[in-house]
Amino acid sequence: MQTQQLEKMLAHHLAGNLPHHAIKDVYEYAVLPGGKLFRPHLVWSVFSDLNPEAFLASKENLNSNHAKLSSGVEFHHTYTLLHDDLPAMDNDLTRRGKPCTHIAYGEWQALLAGDGLLNISYQLLSKINHPRSQDLFRFFSWALGPKGLIHGQVLDLSHEMTKSFANTLRTHELKTARLIQVAILGSALISLLKKDAKKEKALWRYSRLLGVNFQLIDDLSELAESELSQHELDVNPWLRFGEDCLLETSRGLSEFARLSGELKLNNTDKIVADYYAKMLSIIEPNLKTINGHLKGRLDLAPVILMMKTFGNV
Amino acid sequence: MQTQQLEKMLAHHLAGNLPHHAIKDVYEYAVLPGGKLFRPHLVWSVFSDLNPEAFLASKENLNSNHAKLSSGVEFHHTYTLLHDDLPAMDNDLTRRGKPCTHIAYGEWQALLAGDGLLNISYQLLSKINHPRSQDLFRFFSWALGPKGLIHGQVLDLSHEMTKSFANTLRTHELKTARLIQVAILGSALISLLKKDAKKEKALWRYSRLLGVNFQLIDDLSELAESELSQHELDVNPWLRFGEDCLLETSRGLSEFARLSGELKLNNTDKIVADYYAKMLSIIEPNLKTINGHLKGRLDLAPVILMMKTFGNV
Repeated sequence: MQTQQLEKMLAHHLAGNLPHHAIKDVYEYAVLPGGKLFRPHLVWSVFSDLNPEAFLASKENLNSNHAKLSSGVEFHHTYTLLHDDLPAMDNDLTRRGKPCTHIAYGEWQALLAGDGLLNISYQLLSKINHPRSQDLFRFFSWALGPKGLIHGQVLDLSHEMTKSFANTLRTHELKTARLIQVAILGSALISLLKKDAKKEKALWRYSRLLGVNFQLIDDLSELAESELSQHELDVNPWLRFGEDCLLETSRGLSEFARLSGELKLNNTDKIVADYYAKMLSIIEPNLKTINGHLKGRLDLAPVILMMKTFGNV
Repeated sequence: MQTQQLEKMLAHHLAGNLPHHAIKDVYEYAVLPGGKLFRPHLVWSVFSDLNPEAFLASKENLNSNHAKLSSGVEFHHTYTLLHDDLPAMDNDLTRRGKPCTHIAYGEWQALLAGDGLLNISYQLLSKINHPRSQDLFRFFSWALGPKGLIHGQVLDLSHEMTKSFANTLRTHELKTARLIQVAILGSALISLLKKDAKKEKALWRYSRLLGVNFQLIDDLSELAESELSQHELDVNPWLRFGEDCLLETSRGLSEFARLSGELKLNNTDKIVADYYAKMLSIIEPNLKTINGHLKGRLDLAPVILMMKTFGNV
């Protein structure tokens, strides 16, 4: 699926669910242009892997079930960013190379647009017609609720995340992996021709591993900057639990490669490979800087080799 | 239905959807003890009016469809209060006679607990088993989304609400009536034995009128204080559009009484009568103060008589 087509879906479903009012600009500013659209890409790649015929028949349809899910997942992701960036939370000023929504439009506008995007994600879900739409609805609302994604935000903001490596992993699992799991396993629920408990369980683990690895490697790439912000010094797990991060990343990557071979999700593997290639392009040229921050205590070579292998670089 | 039983349902569904973590206290502080629980009461009264046998069979069951809906509606209401009270929005300090959640626990805690309660409302909805659960899900997410309740908040915070009486009515319809409509019409969808487009349309109008009247009479009761806050002076529609408020309230009350007679919602009428009786107990003893704020320009007697008739006072 082309990123451009995913953006077209986002614009379509945003326009259809907003009032004719200046507040539209706030929502659109927050959502468009999209970022990498990693999660919507995963929704469609899983669909194309699990049910290629249905995929081909519906990929042009802006109102297909998967267009609703992929847009809903991205709107949900955007709401978390809007709220995370607020002064009461991370107090960030820029996002995706432009001023944060609350900087550009004001705090109540960003807060309400966040609430609105959260609601739109459920509005789209309510319009999915599929025998398993209620299973999807249950999984979605559980994974992203107070025991899921939101609890990851709580562990982060309460600084419990940095107190132990176990807490770091738990936070990554909830705050990052859950939404990736909703994209992958959620898509599978409405892609598979029939219920397949074994495959769904394997997809649960595959998506969980991907989500945690995604975040750990993202954390590592943050160390490519020569000057780290105080926030990065305070929270980056590689600075605090370097050995554990290294072990978990290599263990995670190899287990992920094994599951990936078993599940034969070729298109999804390509999305993941693109991500690793992009991360390598940040990490590899800056290995010296990264090793400097880590005081040269970790041997990153094996992890980089695994990322290269997986990323076909 | 006893208010105590409704609180038991809230506590049950809150406990079941929160992590074992100190953040629980924040959610519980925000929700319990409940206020008047007007909306959960409406969910159950509509059920008892439309399907008394099923009502009797399930009223003790904490996990019944209606227990999920009535709790979900209240959690959704509480999330809007948590976010409305934040410094970025109304910047309130107290709510229901105690410090606001963000005062008692902090801003990010209140913001995330709001997001969490919003999600829990959908989690509960996802567990309703009924042939019309998807209709309910669609109505709920539309009515409370960016074209619904959230747009009412936008009109309020952007000060557009106070620019014309039409804007005031639109704001009351979206910000107040939509959630009351979800309680009443949402309950009807899972209470009626079969689809009944005519009755559902009448319930839509009944609940819309109730919601708008509820808010206008609440606005009037705010004028019972001898000293009005600057905020009240700025936004109270009776001070600005007194004639229109009076006309709309009497028109609304009489149309509501007519629909109420047609629909024969006896138990629901009792909930509404209790509300009017309570409002009268604030308004009547303070008529002199209220008339003072209104510079004696309005004759409130007919509206008070209608409220008395309806409220059986």
